[in-house]
Amino acid sequence: MHIDLIRSSSKSLPQQISETLAQRITSGLLQPGARLPSVRGLAASLKVSQVTVSKAYDDLESRGHIFCSQGQGCFVARRPHLGQQSGTAWQDGYDDFLPRAQLWRNFDFSGVKYPFHLAAIHAELLPLDFIGNTMSRLVTDQPELMASYGNFQGDAELREVMHRHLHSRGVDVHSSDIMITSGSQQGIDLVARTFVGPGDTVYLEAPSYTGAIDVFAGRGAEMIFVPMDGEGMRVDVLTRLCDKHPPKVIYTNPAFQNPSGVTMSMTRRQRLLELARSYRCLIVEDDPFSDLYFRKPPPPPIKSMDTEGHVVYMKSFSKVIAPGCRIACVAAGGNILSRLIAAKSASDLGSPLLNQRAVLPFIARRYDAYAAQLRISLRSRMEKAVRLLRQYAPPGVTWNVPEGGLNLWLQLPAAEGIVKLRTQAEQAGVSFLPGDVCYSGEVASRHIRLCYSQMTEDDMEQGLRLFLQLLTEHLRADRKA
Amino acid sequence: MHIDLIRSSSKSLPQQISETLAQRITSGLLQPGARLPSVRGLAASLKVSQVTVSKAYDDLESRGHIFCSQGQGCFVARRPHLGQQSGTAWQDGYDDFLPRAQLWRNFDFSGVKYPFHLAAIHAELLPLDFIGNTMSRLVTDQPELMASYGNFQGDAELREVMHRHLHSRGVDVHSSDIMITSGSQQGIDLVARTFVGPGDTVYLEAPSYTGAIDVFAGRGAEMIFVPMDGEGMRVDVLTRLCDKHPPKVIYTNPAFQNPSGVTMSMTRRQRLLELARSYRCLIVEDDPFSDLYFRKPPPPPIKSMDTEGHVVYMKSFSKVIAPGCRIACVAAGGNILSRLIAAKSASDLGSPLLNQRAVLPFIARRYDAYAAQLRISLRSRMEKAVRLLRQYAPPGVTWNVPEGGLNLWLQLPAAEGIVKLRTQAEQAGVSFLPGDVCYSGEVASRHIRLCYSQMTEDDMEQGLRLFLQLLTEHLRADRKA
Repeated sequence: MHIDLIRSSSKSLPQQISETLAQRITSGLLQPGARLPSVRGLAASLKVSQVTVSKAYDDLESRGHIFCSQGQGCFVARRPHLGQQSGTAWQDGYDDFLPRAQLWRNFDFSGVKYPFHLAAIHAELLPLDFIGNTMSRLVTDQPELMASYGNFQGDAELREVMHRHLHSRGVDVHSSDIMITSGSQQGIDLVARTFVGPGDTVYLEAPSYTGAIDVFAGRGAEMIFVPMDGEGMRVDVLTRLCDKHPPKVIYTNPAFQNPSGVTMSMTRRQRLLELARSYRCLIVEDDPFSDLYFRKPPPPPIKSMDTEGHVVYMKSFSKVIAPGCRIACVAAGGNILSRLIAAKSASDLGSPLLNQRAVLPFIARRYDAYAAQLRISLRSRMEKAVRLLRQYAPPGVTWNVPEGGLNLWLQLPAAEGIVKLRTQAEQAGVSFLPGDVCYSGEVASRHIRLCYSQMTEDDMEQGLRLFLQLLTEHLRADRKA
Repeated sequence: MHIDLIRSSSKSLPQQISETLAQRITSGLLQPGARLPSVRGLAASLKVSQVTVSKAYDDLESRGHIFCSQGQGCFVARRPHLGQQSGTAWQDGYDDFLPRAQLWRNFDFSGVKYPFHLAAIHAELLPLDFIGNTMSRLVTDQPELMASYGNFQGDAELREVMHRHLHSRGVDVHSSDIMITSGSQQGIDLVARTFVGPGDTVYLEAPSYTGAIDVFAGRGAEMIFVPMDGEGMRVDVLTRLCDKHPPKVIYTNPAFQNPSGVTMSMTRRQRLLELARSYRCLIVEDDPFSDLYFRKPPPPPIKSMDTEGHVVYMKSFSKVIAPGCRIACVAAGGNILSRLIAAKSASDLGSPLLNQRAVLPFIARRYDAYAAQLRISLRSRMEKAVRLLRQYAPPGVTWNVPEGGLNLWLQLPAAEGIVKLRTQAEQAGVSFLPGDVCYSGEVASRHIRLCYSQMTEDDMEQGLRLFLQLLTEHLRADRKA
């Protein structure tokens, strides 16, 4: 397998190797029972000494990820190897460039009754009738939309609507500075594949969005997680780090951050932009939640202050109006945008034109009134969830009371046992997102993320009660043990 | 800018640098007037000598791609630099990983009256009513499809339908061995990002599909183009090349190849698979056209003989039934497929569920009868196009008579002047694809590709007459000059 080693990193080479392998194992990319490359073979392919690889393997073995047996080699631990068709065994040794896949591992969307793991909005709150009617009208009146690829950059009419929408939010970009993507996930991916390569430094908030971490890891980036406080990313800490590790990209989620819920203050936004200017780097401003505030709107997007093209701004309408249509927009400009459009063309020839047109009238005419209503519904769910937490959460568990967005970020007394809790919860039909996957490498986070908007209100209540009961038993058992 | 240099390549380092820069220039990624990095700066960042970079720049200058002026540096040639906002000038120096973007450059889908450049099928031949009706029914009966992300791997019901379809074509894979992608373009891209890295050898047919070349170039692959004859890729030549440059991926388009129209014989298919087995590599079998035969079906897919998971088979329904829905399937298996699904999740969280369900009933129940009818219509258009060629093509121009697919592959007497012809044709409302973009590096192809199915029959006739008239004048002027 291919591992991007960063010789200038503060992490030792054995540590980098062992972390990458551990990520592959916890992501499920290396299955239990799979044979690891030999020490000699891996050392040769990575151009490091055998001692370096041995140290990495020792470390992995000491943490229970692998077991090594004299003369047999090293294997991924835990469950016995399920016999594969012998013919396809060669595939195990076929190198890839996929160091981590926590999205894939943690967001299999089917099966659980109470899916708290997924930050999404339940169908009953979404404007599906309106969008469905538009879709029906389009396929009748303009069937040729189904026959056309459209432009790589995205439909010109939708870009015009996006332009007006962004303008109303203080982001003054021309429609030619906008590209349509299949969700913000694709926007992040396009920035990464276009501008980030092995060893490039990418800064993220600690914790950050799993999907962004997967993508930057896939490019071999050195990811540095910057601590946050109540005003968002600690830009003072970031500034000090940048001297030693100049940034290629700074990824931020400044409004009701995923997963922590924290909003970046205006001062921090300004300082972050100044820093991007001095380091001539890009800020990826991923903004799915800024319209979902409960009391007051967050400060204007960083992009609204950007005069020199340092901010790639991503506004997803996917989560908020119709995840099944997968429509988001990216605002950039200059030759940053042209290169992103070139990358988009190679990745999928453009987003489906029909889907673009299907959300257009809603965004143009109904979105603002809808968002106002949605805020009220979400706030009521959030408050119900918080009431339940106050009533039933066991001692030692704390949480934020979010000012917007879709998530609660719970802190448990300890990181130990969360894996077990998760298994128990899933058996009972409740899923959550463990905080670990919101970092890269191996951390022992004692946080978990719960989304309160992905079910009907009744299901959310039932599911949360059930989860808190399981959590109470879990912590009680823990104290006894 | 970032350039992946391959030290084991048969091409010299100056040649690799100059080819990459030339590709960026012809792709439009480096705009006329843009300043190139200084010799010293580029040498330092690529870790090569300044002599190497100077040689590359001399070569580029001698071929008119750039001009260098003492003390000022080197600039991309042709048109004067359009002044950029001074504030965004830093973007020019912001490194990217995008060596080539011929898709982006050559497939801007709007504007021309007679778009022969795009291999697609005109709306009047597509089953848009049926798919539109399905779509309308779905948004009414199951609006929740618009609210759901679906699975990363693709909708289980659609995969079941794809499984049955592939089975009917001799490809015996389980529905769990299938993934849904946004067109085959995304399938190719997922294989490249997952399994191909800098210096890995990728073999393609000479010529090959522009979109595949862009994608492999973006991964820093060493692309080797294998000649073809009437039976497709010369596997004997490939075999000899593999000894020196072991393959990571072999990309082939075996039925009515894009752009040449050639079909790979059964024997070659078998030998290609044997070769993949001995080299433990993947074959990407990109198969959009096998149902579009005019006389007899092509041999069964290579995948139908693949017992050990060497073939990643891509079947696009996008081109053939509804390009605006962007639905294709990838059949792989084992941990090749799981890794591709992991990559798909990071790239866009899965294809839109609604679009998947919208094409499902058509593929399940109507596709075969439709394909039979479509073959007749396409053949009639092709025959009309060939009649027009016979009647009006100037002397010295030759073409294949395709046995299937959507394209004519014309050979002109010389490569010179095709750029000029293209400009003239586009001014007159006619577009075509120059053969150059079907290779990597710089070739002087004297071929052009014309698609005969992207317009109404009348428009095709008018457009082709117009084009042949322009071509005649062009060649006459050429002889005079």
